[in-house]
Amino acid sequence: MRVFHDIEPLRQHLESERKNRRVVFVPTMGALHKGHGACVATARSVSEALVVASIFVNPTQFAPGEDLAKYPRTLDSDTEHLRRWHCDVLFAPAVEVMYPEPQHAWVEVEKLDDPLDGRFRPGHFRGVATVVAKLFQIVRPDVAVFGQKDAQQALIVRAMVRQLAFDVELRLARTVREDDGLAVSSRNLYLSANQRVQAAALFKALEAARRSLESGERNPRMVETGALDTLRGAGINRVDYAEMRNADDLSALVAVKGRVILALAAHVGTTRLIDNMVFDVRDDGVHADVMLY
Amino acid sequence: MRVFHDIEPLRQHLESERKNRRVVFVPTMGALHKGHGACVATARSVSEALVVASIFVNPTQFAPGEDLAKYPRTLDSDTEHLRRWHCDVLFAPAVEVMYPEPQHAWVEVEKLDDPLDGRFRPGHFRGVATVVAKLFQIVRPDVAVFGQKDAQQALIVRAMVRQLAFDVELRLARTVREDDGLAVSSRNLYLSANQRVQAAALFKALEAARRSLESGERNPRMVETGALDTLRGAGINRVDYAEMRNADDLSALVAVKGRVILALAAHVGTTRLIDNMVFDVRDDGVHADVMLY
Repeated sequence: MRVFHDIEPLRQHLESERKNRRVVFVPTMGALHKGHGACVATARSVSEALVVASIFVNPTQFAPGEDLAKYPRTLDSDTEHLRRWHCDVLFAPAVEVMYPEPQHAWVEVEKLDDPLDGRFRPGHFRGVATVVAKLFQIVRPDVAVFGQKDAQQALIVRAMVRQLAFDVELRLARTVREDDGLAVSSRNLYLSANQRVQAAALFKALEAARRSLESGERNPRMVETGALDTLRGAGINRVDYAEMRNADDLSALVAVKGRVILALAAHVGTTRLIDNMVFDVRDDGVHADVMLY
Repeated sequence: MRVFHDIEPLRQHLESERKNRRVVFVPTMGALHKGHGACVATARSVSEALVVASIFVNPTQFAPGEDLAKYPRTLDSDTEHLRRWHCDVLFAPAVEVMYPEPQHAWVEVEKLDDPLDGRFRPGHFRGVATVVAKLFQIVRPDVAVFGQKDAQQALIVRAMVRQLAFDVELRLARTVREDDGLAVSSRNLYLSANQRVQAAALFKALEAARRSLESGERNPRMVETGALDTLRGAGINRVDYAEMRNADDLSALVAVKGRVILALAAHVGTTRLIDNMVFDVRDDGVHADVMLY
């Protein structure tokens, strides 16, 4: 695996490689886990893929008061993971490489960034869209892979790609879960043993919603209430949201029909966790846990 | 000259051409005149250039109440001009090609878009930055050429290129003037014969500022007042601004020193005209009418 910390040597390397291979890009913030492994595997499955991962803890996507300073930085073990997953190229820039001057140029995706995490993390998606745009300019991927766990991010990146005419094909990797259903996340490292047990309630809440939909419930408020009850039953009282929305544009739902998402954000101790499940609700039944795109 | 109206055929054509030539891009809104001719000539002067022009009257950069509907659309004569100027490729997309769905993804450059036209044309520079970003994604130029007359735009595009890591080299073409000094502009077509005479006062105001600086004036307010007096003396009473600012970041000036710009926007009848002059004010004298970059 070739490792680059600067933009120009990376660009030159990719320029020569892309003649024969498709550049398939997996942007990450490091602290790599099985979820990232699934993204790299998805990237690897593209034919003729040259798999390029990036590790960059992007300061502009952390809202004031969030965990930028304590976000885990584990470059050595991350590098080992990537080698083991047969990643071809790692781009791991310093903050000064990505932001050499005060940043005033931003990419913003309106509407999609209004609800859910957009309400609770001011500036977060502007930071995400901007750094993804910038990484796309640097890596110029043919294909880029994101995780379905960050569903709102995945929709925002899709809108950005379409509406700013990026010549990139997007693929999603399925959410990877621990045995008890907890979605793997770098932030799970923050959880104590007791909190780790409690955190499984997020997946239980999604499962409760699935059962509710499968038993015929079509009132989104009732499904949300069932999910909330599950969280509260596990002692999780600080819930930012438990909302069902249209899975394509995140618009509000009056009735559950078509492709919908149940998105959760809740605090377990001082750790904020998110999770989601996408459903395709048709006349002939409910298809649960489908891909966002 | 090859003409394209759609994105994919253009991309394919450029993909094969860029193996041997540098793609040099001149984005325009059509209604072409000598100023655009200077941009194409600047593009032509790049070695191994494949000169690509675009003609697109971009609706998102017109503020509410501006002249979007009446903006001149003269594709046939524009095409003839471009042929005569030895342009290689023309991209002339319809609005639906550039904006196939409601646009929610925007590129915005803060700070630089605060003063001057940013104060008088809400949303203008967001529309400019967004369409230029999108055109850059489509054309993927090695070099792009803009006109110095739109100085604030030129600075905003430069910040966007740097801060979003576009791999594009920017060049500016000098402002082209009529015999009486009026900067050529598509909007000059709106002027009556009397207004056309009056409009020459913009250049006279810049010349008054030049003389004032050359005679040692270093108080920016005094230079601005001299320019304003010239405009008013010609009967131009609706002046949006006549401001001296730092020519690199458009910050306000206390004293005139280094690279500065005098930027004007004024209404002649119902037509809004802009113009500017850049000065390099050093201890050993004033260099007038220098390039912004």
